[in-house]
Amino acid sequence: MDTPVFRAQSAPMRWQGVAVAEYKREHEAPFRDVTRQVLFDDPQLSCQLRYFEVAPGGHTTLERHEHVHAVVIARGRGRCLIGDRVYDVALHDLVHVPALTWHQFQADKKVPLGFLCMVNAVRDRPQLPSTEDLARLRANPLVAAFIAEGSTV
Amino acid sequence: MDTPVFRAQSAPMRWQGVAVAEYKREHEAPFRDVTRQVLFDDPQLSCQLRYFEVAPGGHTTLERHEHVHAVVIARGRGRCLIGDRVYDVALHDLVHVPALTWHQFQADKKVPLGFLCMVNAVRDRPQLPSTEDLARLRANPLVAAFIAEGSTV
Repeated sequence: MDTPVFRAQSAPMRWQGVAVAEYKREHEAPFRDVTRQVLFDDPQLSCQLRYFEVAPGGHTTLERHEHVHAVVIARGRGRCLIGDRVYDVALHDLVHVPALTWHQFQADKKVPLGFLCMVNAVRDRPQLPSTEDLARLRANPLVAAFIAEGSTV
Repeated sequence: MDTPVFRAQSAPMRWQGVAVAEYKREHEAPFRDVTRQVLFDDPQLSCQLRYFEVAPGGHTTLERHEHVHAVVIARGRGRCLIGDRVYDVALHDLVHVPALTWHQFQADKKVPLGFLCMVNAVRDRPQLPSTEDLARLRANPLVAAFIAEGSTV
């Protein structure tokens, strides 16, 4: 289907003709309260632009992959783990997730965290951490505390 | 240079380490009061994400090209011409500029118009309208009025 020329925002972070999808299939990977909307997925563009929204207290999957993410925070606030560092993120901050780098986004307890995410249209599937990967990540106490917050399903 | 993992918004629509550039070289093409910031331009991403801001009363160049644009309005409001239609645009509206389609963005007279724009990293150069192209565009009175607003330099 051709991408429509104009799609108005119909409610905050909702758009005409853009389906609000589940982040992932249930039980495919651990996450909590995340929606996914594909804003641009056009055969003439070599990237896609998606909007993800994590509800208060929710989190994306802790994962890594070869493809990189270019993220613009678009709503609310929260934190993210990128590699071995935790960052506080808020409106319009820019986050770049390098290749094969463990990452997770967590919303604040009281407000959602929404972000635009640009990725290559052709990309590899995410990898989940093994028990050994988790042990290595938890060696850093700040990362261990972050992962503990983001491991509820 | 590697893309930094985290860049905070340092002022409204300004970021640590992101240069505020001229939209185009002066006299290269007609435009008025537009800045360009490249947010993501990474060798591992096949698209770039840029932020353009048109000051109140300003406008981008009226142009077309083979490559398409995926636009998310990020600040303020204004209007855009896409092909033979003029659209009012405001926060978070989505605009897709198809291939070889004349387009221009104009800010409101009183507020700026800022937008994120995703494009393929490898792309053709813009074309400017010939006298004949302009005559064809002006055959539609709404388009003629829009172009008249957006032809000040």
